[in-house]
Amino acid sequence: MSIERLFDAVKRSGPVCVGLDTAPDYIPPKAALEQAAASVLRFNEALIEATVDVSACYKIQIAYYEALGREGMDVYAKTLAYARARGGICIADIKRGDISDTAVQYAKAHFSGDFEADIVTLNPYMGMDSIEPWFTEAERRNKGAFVLLRTSNKGFVDFEGQKTANGACVYDLVGEKLLELAQRSSGNSGYGIFGAVVGAEAKSAAEREEARMLRLKYSKLFFLIPGYGAQGGGAAEAALLLTEQKNGGVINASRSILKAWQNLETGIETTLENAAQAARAAVIQMRDSIKSA
Amino acid sequence: MSIERLFDAVKRSGPVCVGLDTAPDYIPPKAALEQAAASVLRFNEALIEATVDVSACYKIQIAYYEALGREGMDVYAKTLAYARARGGICIADIKRGDISDTAVQYAKAHFSGDFEADIVTLNPYMGMDSIEPWFTEAERRNKGAFVLLRTSNKGFVDFEGQKTANGACVYDLVGEKLLELAQRSSGNSGYGIFGAVVGAEAKSAAEREEARMLRLKYSKLFFLIPGYGAQGGGAAEAALLLTEQKNGGVINASRSILKAWQNLETGIETTLENAAQAARAAVIQMRDSIKSA
Repeated sequence: MSIERLFDAVKRSGPVCVGLDTAPDYIPPKAALEQAAASVLRFNEALIEATVDVSACYKIQIAYYEALGREGMDVYAKTLAYARARGGICIADIKRGDISDTAVQYAKAHFSGDFEADIVTLNPYMGMDSIEPWFTEAERRNKGAFVLLRTSNKGFVDFEGQKTANGACVYDLVGEKLLELAQRSSGNSGYGIFGAVVGAEAKSAAEREEARMLRLKYSKLFFLIPGYGAQGGGAAEAALLLTEQKNGGVINASRSILKAWQNLETGIETTLENAAQAARAAVIQMRDSIKSA
Repeated sequence: MSIERLFDAVKRSGPVCVGLDTAPDYIPPKAALEQAAASVLRFNEALIEATVDVSACYKIQIAYYEALGREGMDVYAKTLAYARARGGICIADIKRGDISDTAVQYAKAHFSGDFEADIVTLNPYMGMDSIEPWFTEAERRNKGAFVLLRTSNKGFVDFEGQKTANGACVYDLVGEKLLELAQRSSGNSGYGIFGAVVGAEAKSAAEREEARMLRLKYSKLFFLIPGYGAQGGGAAEAALLLTEQKNGGVINASRSILKAWQNLETGIETTLENAAQAARAAVIQMRDSIKSA
């Protein structure tokens, strides 16, 4: 199971998830090619090469590739293939959510063929018949999925954070269903086929308390934790969502790694190799500050 | 605004939305080509040609195209282009839902370039900061969006159908936010940039009452109504979600149109042209039974 592999990867290389949300304008001018899609691919490859031994996995936000049209989808496929060929675990950040036959088609799309990833992200709004088909497909194909649970964006309060009639939040209903699924699939690490996306924002004492509660309550779920770095979360906050062994989740950072080169003295003269090494340094620094948090 | 265009199209040609969820095995053997993606494209083109004057719009379920990898995305792009060149309004059934920068990337992907559609479907789970960016982009590019509100799948009760602390359902919270947005954008028809996906299942008296209430409560929202035909909904149920003028929404059918050829006597000997004409007849029959419902 892919979540099992992720657990082992964190044990080996730490919990940093490198977010390849690569907008063409994140690339240093000197390292860019004329064609945006080709430019993104070459940049991704250099960053993967430079970070594969110090990170747990890659999260590829498909929106940035869809935005480049057919060429973007080609780069998306090639980025996945490149990372996976080097042993990198790839999370396709697709946040799909649709029912029955459509879910099966999506699973086919992202668990095999051109767009094959190891793990996907899913949106539970339509209910468990939009999630269950992925369980079967993931089991069959040795894959995994993170389902959106409690995200850390401001809009979280609008729906997922609303209190239901019995006092729980909407996201708790999602969590309960995921725990039921987890019982059907736990591997050696104690984690199953499904994990959960849980946000890292924990600025106030109440939010930090909520983070601790989430870790406790969903101890059977491996977490994908976005929001580190450019999105405002810090190492101490993110670490609240990990176990004492600093495992049980991966912490994603995108822009703070992709654009780490902007802190170099070389500025717009930065080369591809410099940018890749700056990304590596950012990953190591992030990993170490989480470790000591 | 694209929802405005849809209102006019319904007035002119009736409320049928042709769902191009084209799985390769929906195509009659005699009409299939060796290569699955090419086969789907040719089938889609024939169906569009045969139905463009009797339907309101096309809904293209992107999962079926993603499942065919890069070639599938090519067919997806070409299907959109073909339908739009013939004056067909295209709803990209993508159910995307992500925040801020990512939402903008998705909007760029589906409102311009290779994958340009007229209207998209969206998932609101993460909150209004995953929906608002689409408003700006749709306004700027003269596009529209349907947000998932009350779907008709069984899993609906798991989360969207849950009662919140104040007695409303989760989906009502979504609806209230959409009504606020509608006020900021209503055109001549009274409908704005955003519509809502509302299911057609209305088998019991209670469900029919709920359908009437939904139409009343969300009279400012144009509806995308799936679930007709193969998914179980009938004309009378679907019509409850339309206005007295049989407008205010489009009713989608996919398999009952795509696979209408299976009711022909020609069976597996059915040609592409036969299949297209069977689809046309199915659309006309559906349109007429809604009209007389």
